[in-house]
Amino acid sequence: VELSAPGLARRLAREPRGVLATLAPDGRAALVPVVFAHEAGVIWSPIDGKPKAPGELARVRHAERDPRVALLLDRYAPDWSLLWWIRVEGRARVLRAADEASAPLELRRAGAALRAKYPQYAERPLFRDPPTLLCVDVAATRSWASSREAQRAAEED
Amino acid sequence: VELSAPGLARRLAREPRGVLATLAPDGRAALVPVVFAHEAGVIWSPIDGKPKAPGELARVRHAERDPRVALLLDRYAPDWSLLWWIRVEGRARVLRAADEASAPLELRRAGAALRAKYPQYAERPLFRDPPTLLCVDVAATRSWASSREAQRAAEED
Repeated sequence: VELSAPGLARRLAREPRGVLATLAPDGRAALVPVVFAHEAGVIWSPIDGKPKAPGELARVRHAERDPRVALLLDRYAPDWSLLWWIRVEGRARVLRAADEASAPLELRRAGAALRAKYPQYAERPLFRDPPTLLCVDVAATRSWASSREAQRAAEED
Repeated sequence: VELSAPGLARRLAREPRGVLATLAPDGRAALVPVVFAHEAGVIWSPIDGKPKAPGELARVRHAERDPRVALLLDRYAPDWSLLWWIRVEGRARVLRAADEASAPLELRRAGAALRAKYPQYAERPLFRDPPTLLCVDVAATRSWASSREAQRAAEED
């Protein structure tokens, strides 16, 4: 069972985390869970204030070298009639700015969308200094649900 | 914060699902959630009876073409002090057999480990016919927890 287009858009809007795959210089897939916001065919994922290694993150270096990325959303449940996944393929761009206030429109829009989706950013920095944002232009989406009930849960809950 | 080696082994034993990345012929990462069992540095993931496209699965074709795979386990929570992830890199082998009873020892051991971990296989076929098993020889593991509490949860719960 596949998700409907409106159901897919609702799930992308609501789902709090996805697994991002970038491509390392040796061609291996590098996986990391990320938070993100979705608007009009673009996925925004901030390099935020959660604890991280210092310096430029691998996901940013990878995306600047090879923009092909993938994002997986999925639900696991012990009841296997409730499983679903959504797979997004796209091309990444890295947006940087000296500060958020003077940043390009897209980074400011992303900041607003991410703060609206994640109340956690009231207490943590949305961007590390200086702001860096991964933007993924969605090229293709596939989805799968193990039953009609799983499809309904993915589209509506 | 990283996980301890025993904590990591416990989590690999207990965690019900991971996100598998294989490499498509064009070099893109292909992501899919999988069930798996872990024993002595090998991860076993069956091509099981959950609904799937007919024919050889993409993950099997990819792994036979380029054995470099990655697996991510992670926990999301609205309380961001409880996040953790484990990233496994390895090389995949595909094991096939005419039937499980006459299969090589590794496939039979994997079958036993998967049935012990997933009671769901009492009601669903563990293998499609003929049995196909993805074996990942673990080469490297990295982990991250956002706090000591997240580390404890990943290692013990």
